[in-house]
Amino acid sequence: MTRYQHLATLLAERIEQGLYRSGERLPSVRNLSSEHGVSISTVQQAYHILEDRQLISPQPRSGYFVTPQKSQPPVPALTRPAQRPVEITQWDAVLEQLTGREDAGSIAFGSGFPDVTQATIKPLWREMSRIVQHQESEILGYDCINGKQVLREQIARLMLDSRCVVTPDDIVVTTGCHEALSIAIRAVCEAGDIVAVESPCFHGTMQMLRAFGIKVVEIPTDSETGISVEALELALEQWPIKAVILVPTCNNPLGFIMPDARKKAVLNLAQRFDIAIIEDDVYGELAYEYPRPMTIKSLDVDGRVLLCSSFSKTLAPGLRVGWIVPGRYFDRAMHMKYIVTGSTTTFTQMAVAEFVRNGHYHRHLRRMRQHYQRNLDIFTCWVRHYFPCGICVSRPQGGFLMWIELPEEIDIVPISEVLRQHNIRIAVGSLLSASGKYRNCMRLNYALPFNTTTETALRDMGELISQVFENS
Amino acid sequence: MTRYQHLATLLAERIEQGLYRSGERLPSVRNLSSEHGVSISTVQQAYHILEDRQLISPQPRSGYFVTPQKSQPPVPALTRPAQRPVEITQWDAVLEQLTGREDAGSIAFGSGFPDVTQATIKPLWREMSRIVQHQESEILGYDCINGKQVLREQIARLMLDSRCVVTPDDIVVTTGCHEALSIAIRAVCEAGDIVAVESPCFHGTMQMLRAFGIKVVEIPTDSETGISVEALELALEQWPIKAVILVPTCNNPLGFIMPDARKKAVLNLAQRFDIAIIEDDVYGELAYEYPRPMTIKSLDVDGRVLLCSSFSKTLAPGLRVGWIVPGRYFDRAMHMKYIVTGSTTTFTQMAVAEFVRNGHYHRHLRRMRQHYQRNLDIFTCWVRHYFPCGICVSRPQGGFLMWIELPEEIDIVPISEVLRQHNIRIAVGSLLSASGKYRNCMRLNYALPFNTTTETALRDMGELISQVFENS
Repeated sequence: MTRYQHLATLLAERIEQGLYRSGERLPSVRNLSSEHGVSISTVQQAYHILEDRQLISPQPRSGYFVTPQKSQPPVPALTRPAQRPVEITQWDAVLEQLTGREDAGSIAFGSGFPDVTQATIKPLWREMSRIVQHQESEILGYDCINGKQVLREQIARLMLDSRCVVTPDDIVVTTGCHEALSIAIRAVCEAGDIVAVESPCFHGTMQMLRAFGIKVVEIPTDSETGISVEALELALEQWPIKAVILVPTCNNPLGFIMPDARKKAVLNLAQRFDIAIIEDDVYGELAYEYPRPMTIKSLDVDGRVLLCSSFSKTLAPGLRVGWIVPGRYFDRAMHMKYIVTGSTTTFTQMAVAEFVRNGHYHRHLRRMRQHYQRNLDIFTCWVRHYFPCGICVSRPQGGFLMWIELPEEIDIVPISEVLRQHNIRIAVGSLLSASGKYRNCMRLNYALPFNTTTETALRDMGELISQVFENS
Repeated sequence: MTRYQHLATLLAERIEQGLYRSGERLPSVRNLSSEHGVSISTVQQAYHILEDRQLISPQPRSGYFVTPQKSQPPVPALTRPAQRPVEITQWDAVLEQLTGREDAGSIAFGSGFPDVTQATIKPLWREMSRIVQHQESEILGYDCINGKQVLREQIARLMLDSRCVVTPDDIVVTTGCHEALSIAIRAVCEAGDIVAVESPCFHGTMQMLRAFGIKVVEIPTDSETGISVEALELALEQWPIKAVILVPTCNNPLGFIMPDARKKAVLNLAQRFDIAIIEDDVYGELAYEYPRPMTIKSLDVDGRVLLCSSFSKTLAPGLRVGWIVPGRYFDRAMHMKYIVTGSTTTFTQMAVAEFVRNGHYHRHLRRMRQHYQRNLDIFTCWVRHYFPCGICVSRPQGGFLMWIELPEEIDIVPISEVLRQHNIRIAVGSLLSASGKYRNCMRLNYALPFNTTTETALRDMGELISQVFENS
């Protein structure tokens, strides 16, 4: 056996024994070389053998990592919410969750924060600096209601990636996707109306519905293919539903991408029952597949799809730059935009427009897709390693949110309160249900840095859950 | 007669003959000196004589101006709207008015734009530059719902100027005063409710009420003392009114400041009938009197006043930084803030906070108050000079909006369309009425620069109105 074969066997054993765990970085070539008293090239050859065996994988400029094991925990089954119109509760819990934003010391597993520390975001500061230097009084004055033309042009171009052909005049810039959704709902619905949503469903959307006095029918949703078209059809036959709200691409919280055929099927249903579709595409550009999946909006022929999106998840939420393409509801959307905020902050609109126009955005997207995909591998490993058996974990196809389902007898709500005292904040599944279901589930943000602090927090969380599990 | 007395007499004659018109700048000392072949000090002495006679007045760093004549046109009488709940119309006209924002070439007499070109705004760019240089990732992340603590601290301090004692935790930062008003209305009212407003009333507020399905009772309002307390009482006795919305300090569009006693009387009424007061103070800091008048909020003992304001009129609207102090409606306001925009743009919040904290804001306010007050003199002169007799003109006590009432037989709506073709945009009074009254009135923005273009535009406007008047 040659030296490098010997070294490869030794390392493979260590991986098998769990000394180097799945997703973990291996020692650098230089370190191994001096540890074992062999040449650099011997270590490199050993690593090549392990790479061929798919035990390890290289990451550009970061070294070698243990390839995540193929045995994945099972994915959550089709959800089974109560399929009748219900009023939304949970505001106190949502508020509690959101106030965590202020607490800089806590580890925000429950948040929807993207990673804003990657190098590819740096040009944004340069663009901002350039705008400040020019001191254009345009930045200080009121913008028109629908937003800066330069930005709308860039958004129209970006939307081509999802096969969506719109003009800048079809777009209304908003204060984040939040305002876009808020406008969309108000453009389509009135108090007392009923809308259909995926279950689980983003708590922000549900709180909007609550505030506007709208009831929801929660539709069973599959963690890999999205909303059940059959269940949606049944609900449409049964109730006078005005609209369906979907996050079909990189779903929040389940991470699925609806197959194209299903997107078409939902649009067909919407046409048959003459309802609107509010399509939340805020995570869509973070799909791990390339080119990115199409939107339902791209199939829309009669303007019944209101597409809502923003740069909050892909670039930076603090900018508060989003948009809506409201289709046939354009006039109502303009009225809503006017009465809600009047217009959008000019400075950040300009900064984003320049960032996109100068090609930084696509570069940044590539980087973030890779980054989140790698984080997903590592976080999945950690969860499998530290959480008790019998859990189900979603397999996100984009974005940075993971859905974990524990055995039904476990209630995460009291666990989350204990974790909070340890400065660990999680989003309990019940936040994402109109009627407080999913108390055995949680949404996990894997945009967090993968460092010892995060790993320790996940380990502590897993241990606490295991204890509760054993005692139950 | 000495040389300077001779020169003074000559100049006085020219002013009397109208060669130098009221509000106009006189030739510089240097120019007069060379024109008349006299020394600089002779001209200065001549100007001192005219100043003593109050014929002219010096402006720091701008030279001497002809003092506006004392004879003012009469002020508009108490308005007489239909005092029953009505639904709001006029959205098309408002939208038409607002789309003027895009048209950079037009003269925007109809807008609510402040002047953002004064030197005292420069430090804002410096603060922005400093923030960009620090590249704090805090700027990129989500803010908490109620806004940056540093900004709320500065706002709490500013509010002391209006005798209002609040803590930073009582304040929710908003995307301009627009979002603040929108939140306030939704925190207090539901669809089908009735609110009382001043008449005329800011069209933005009325469009919000329209969108939320709320009816208004327009209350007679005096152009110098504000809403008629008696009429408001009568309306409260007659209708199940939920709230009254007021701009009591530097009213939009009438420019009045309600006397303190009247502010107290309105609050007493609100207490007696147990209704909320939504106080729009967005122009309040631009009162020409110092210290600035108190707010109704400062008298509020049971949290029924929701104060709405922003930096849009005093500093720059493009920043979209406003706030609400919602009193007892705090929880509902937080929910509304969350569902409407989630949070406010971080960058501009930080820039404003630093601008205020470093003392630039108070300096800027002083400058703007002086500036608008001088503009008011000049614009009033121009209006008196170029508009037909028989008009009434408001005497704003702050802000930069003037209300002009033409004889009742004149309809400004078709006139405004003609003016539009000449790139002159005005706000027809009917925009500020729920039911399309005030078609013989207009709101005029005097934050526009007083230059030949503005004067010519006002002259053209006056001529057109005179023609219509003569033909009517």
